[in-house]
Amino acid sequence: MSNNRIVSGMRPTGKLHLGHYHGVLSNWMELQRNFECFFFAADWHSLTTEYASTDGIQDSITEMVLDWLAFGIDPEQSVIFKQSRVPQHAELNLILSMITPVSWLERNPTYKEMQENLTTKDLSTFGFLGYPVLMASDIIVYKAARVPVGQDQIPHLEITREIARRFNYLYGEVFPEPAALLTETPKVLGIDGRKMSKSYGNAIFLSDDAEETRKKVMSMVTDTLRPFKRDPGEPDRCVAFTLHSLYVDADKRAEIVEGCRSAQLGCVDCKKILAQAMVDTLAPFREKRVELAAKPGLVDEVLAEGSRKAEVVARQTMDEARAALKV
Amino acid sequence: MSNNRIVSGMRPTGKLHLGHYHGVLSNWMELQRNFECFFFAADWHSLTTEYASTDGIQDSITEMVLDWLAFGIDPEQSVIFKQSRVPQHAELNLILSMITPVSWLERNPTYKEMQENLTTKDLSTFGFLGYPVLMASDIIVYKAARVPVGQDQIPHLEITREIARRFNYLYGEVFPEPAALLTETPKVLGIDGRKMSKSYGNAIFLSDDAEETRKKVMSMVTDTLRPFKRDPGEPDRCVAFTLHSLYVDADKRAEIVEGCRSAQLGCVDCKKILAQAMVDTLAPFREKRVELAAKPGLVDEVLAEGSRKAEVVARQTMDEARAALKV
Repeated sequence: MSNNRIVSGMRPTGKLHLGHYHGVLSNWMELQRNFECFFFAADWHSLTTEYASTDGIQDSITEMVLDWLAFGIDPEQSVIFKQSRVPQHAELNLILSMITPVSWLERNPTYKEMQENLTTKDLSTFGFLGYPVLMASDIIVYKAARVPVGQDQIPHLEITREIARRFNYLYGEVFPEPAALLTETPKVLGIDGRKMSKSYGNAIFLSDDAEETRKKVMSMVTDTLRPFKRDPGEPDRCVAFTLHSLYVDADKRAEIVEGCRSAQLGCVDCKKILAQAMVDTLAPFREKRVELAAKPGLVDEVLAEGSRKAEVVARQTMDEARAALKV
Repeated sequence: MSNNRIVSGMRPTGKLHLGHYHGVLSNWMELQRNFECFFFAADWHSLTTEYASTDGIQDSITEMVLDWLAFGIDPEQSVIFKQSRVPQHAELNLILSMITPVSWLERNPTYKEMQENLTTKDLSTFGFLGYPVLMASDIIVYKAARVPVGQDQIPHLEITREIARRFNYLYGEVFPEPAALLTETPKVLGIDGRKMSKSYGNAIFLSDDAEETRKKVMSMVTDTLRPFKRDPGEPDRCVAFTLHSLYVDADKRAEIVEGCRSAQLGCVDCKKILAQAMVDTLAPFREKRVELAAKPGLVDEVLAEGSRKAEVVARQTMDEARAALKV
């Protein structure tokens, strides 16, 4: 039953920012080298919370997938597709809904939490309650052996495993229980010191050009207890410095720490170092992205081709599931 | 927006009995003459309550569809298909789930009632809660103008109409709200006097042969206050007499009433009249059914061809729904 397959999806949120890069995309690039990967734009999932305003979903998918491609997620190596274009996700979702107790969904910790937090949206829908069932379908329709997850997503994967187990118990062994591939993800802070997020308006986007990137880096919060350059600073209190560890090499960082604590290096100069390192690191990607964005229809083609490939695998699984179910 | 389209499904319960005939099938035959009909075997719906034992579903579908065909539901006139073979039912179900408040489903009167009555089954699943969403998908994916319903099903159709309205409100006019085509259905009693039902073991099946039919009719309960033939009887207290009105013409019935009340006609003779009338009425159908049942693969072919036709219409609707949704 075991295979080398990985499934992972992203909700289409538009252009990706550094948080997505260090949290997900860099991990995908690593996975692509070692596994058979299925990466998808989770547009059905967008509807669980965004059903009332779907206008931007298509553009969001295009921008997001351009970022994937520019970073090297490669349609020759990985299956890159759009969830809503593979009907077996919906079909398996319907089947799994029949065997999933409502109580499993109600006890999902994210469910109540999101309902409480996203008070501006009406999340009392049947689809929102059922998103762990859809997530289970997304994963097991490809019989994924492993799913990359952060620590906080382990309860969701556990529901997927329980649903797969229940199907196998009722109808015979069809679905391997996907294992968690735990990924360490650094918490990337935005320019205001909060978690980087598009909705906070504090994000540095992967597609920002050099000038924009510099401008954002230069506006980052530093050590607020160091009002003047002549005062010694503390990198551990500096929001910008959290990014130095991702873009500036260790030797240079040691110099910076020294320069900051001894009041030799000012915040402006320090951030210039960061901005330059970031611009240098991301430059090849940005060039590639501009190049890809100039090809009209490219993303649509990639997704159409990938969705066809995904459907071949998903249909095979559904045939087995139907045979087991005897429908 | 208005069309001439009707959608109606039956859960695959195996061979149909007189209750199905007078309750649904005779109405379908009438509808087929006047509308563009989509008739389907609702195997997904079976899973809402029968998910724990799906062994018999395929055979049930075959037996049921043989009855449809034998009675004259005609694949040249109507689209006869299997729900699970048209993936757009599942796709639209997923979309509609995103916009349907859980509270609409919880307040569905059948939901609590069935959970309370079917205590031998665990009906606390997500799919069972969501069956009105699936029902809405089944209907509006064909943009049906009308749906034949009994009085007791009007609340279900109301949920369908509400879901269609909500989709149209959120994304633009795609789905006509299907109107109820109220059908009067006689309550058909089984041989023990309770409602005719396969699970009560009191059913006369459409496919029962003449001998079996006679045997069942002869065992029917009559006027229990008439112990002997010499006692006058009362047709209004007689279970068998409820069927006379469906199979014996009015003149003959008047004679029977007279004979019963005057103690001239005994129950045995009276039921022989019924049995003969029933056998005569159903004979052409039974012959046709034996003929059809002898063609291996016939039902599968009819359903495959019908499902293809249904999918053409359903795909068209789904394209419109996707365009409106912008996914």
